[in-house]
Amino acid sequence: MISSKANETIKNIRKLRNRKYREETGLAYVEGHKIIIDALNARNAIEKIIFSESFTQAEKNNPLLDRTRAKNYEIVYVTDEVFASISGKENPKGIGVVIKQDWHIGLPHPLSGTWVGLYEVADPGNLGTIIRTLDAVGGNGIILIGNSTDPYDPGALRASMGAIFSVKIVKTSLADFVDWAGMGHITIFGTSDQAEDSYMRQEYEDDMILLMGSERQGLPQELIKICKHLISLPMFGTADSLNLSVATGVFLYDVLEKRMTREAASD
Amino acid sequence: MISSKANETIKNIRKLRNRKYREETGLAYVEGHKIIIDALNARNAIEKIIFSESFTQAEKNNPLLDRTRAKNYEIVYVTDEVFASISGKENPKGIGVVIKQDWHIGLPHPLSGTWVGLYEVADPGNLGTIIRTLDAVGGNGIILIGNSTDPYDPGALRASMGAIFSVKIVKTSLADFVDWAGMGHITIFGTSDQAEDSYMRQEYEDDMILLMGSERQGLPQELIKICKHLISLPMFGTADSLNLSVATGVFLYDVLEKRMTREAASD
Repeated sequence: MISSKANETIKNIRKLRNRKYREETGLAYVEGHKIIIDALNARNAIEKIIFSESFTQAEKNNPLLDRTRAKNYEIVYVTDEVFASISGKENPKGIGVVIKQDWHIGLPHPLSGTWVGLYEVADPGNLGTIIRTLDAVGGNGIILIGNSTDPYDPGALRASMGAIFSVKIVKTSLADFVDWAGMGHITIFGTSDQAEDSYMRQEYEDDMILLMGSERQGLPQELIKICKHLISLPMFGTADSLNLSVATGVFLYDVLEKRMTREAASD
Repeated sequence: MISSKANETIKNIRKLRNRKYREETGLAYVEGHKIIIDALNARNAIEKIIFSESFTQAEKNNPLLDRTRAKNYEIVYVTDEVFASISGKENPKGIGVVIKQDWHIGLPHPLSGTWVGLYEVADPGNLGTIIRTLDAVGGNGIILIGNSTDPYDPGALRASMGAIFSVKIVKTSLADFVDWAGMGHITIFGTSDQAEDSYMRQEYEDDMILLMGSERQGLPQELIKICKHLISLPMFGTADSLNLSVATGVFLYDVLEKRMTREAASD
């Protein structure tokens, strides 16, 4: 039982709040019952598990405890005070896990299924929510283009609701993405509120990238140029804009709906 | 120029972080250039405007300053230190506004257009994002049912991106909503991941309520009972759930798309 906040292991877990340290170590820290279950179900995702003293006492019949002990994970037991020092939450439940980052290496080749390309997404909550939505529609992966927020940011992990373990994630520069897309065989559907074509009449392809711009400025010209189609969502309000993760969700469900319609027609 | 953080006006603005005080005064505080423009464009939305010393100096040619001065609003000039004390942000821009809360009184009668009913929505960001999306699809209003988060919470206002000034908002108890819905003429489409009917085959009506459950537990039985139709979104992933504001966005765009298709057909 670790009772000192100055303990080296504890200090290193706290340092995972820092993006640079997460990138150096290839690790991340996340809290919560559901995400630990998802991490246990994922292959080789867990580096260590942290339980607080009161969690192990109050929940001593919780099957999670047996399950984690059975698998020979490194388990760290800490006092409630030490747990509070590593937790970002006000009333932490007392379960945390250090996970191993899992990046897909290289741009997908061949690209199969539905992928989302995100140009310089800035908000961790948006990124996590898009990962969650892509998982829900049975999509395959996310391509982070340019200077993007970190999918292993605590806010992104929380918003992903465990989908981080089932969606492939790859990062690339704008130049590399444009080169790769220029090789030809990839169909890219870009979105822009200036596009003339509404998504409603758009037909998609089985293997494709839905390309979304950043919260602040949408897609840059370099990316608009490589899109096979540019589509928009109709908007009527005074604010005339949508949250990025909502817009991505509407497009992804349109892709899914039309795929299901094609499959039903070909049966 | 107010230079004391202990000034009574400044203390009262800071107190608007507290929901109870917001409810007592019927006011709220929000920051940012865009929301001030939206507030200026809305009818009678502004109680006072706060400018920091460096904003008024650095932006002295900003047309916003003339526009606010021309309209005889109460303007409060404060030092940067005082502005930082009222701002929730790390690098505040130096423009804030105290707005008057504007609640629609009574459940809508007759109900016209697209309304969203939200049962015990808990997350301010979700509520603000749903307000923004409803505005984008040209919808009419939000009915907050039961113990809901506050649309005038700073996080909700930020997420609404100014749409708070163009969407009607009403709050009611679960019992009153059920009574009102029982009177008959209102068509309610409820959503549930247990519903057998996918939204894809659903036809809607011009005047309707889309009823969404809370983040934690969806719709309670009392509300499921009063729905004319229960619909779901297909889901395939391992996580099998969507963020509430994303799910609401997908349904609202489905409602909009089918309305546009009906209107095109009847032309």
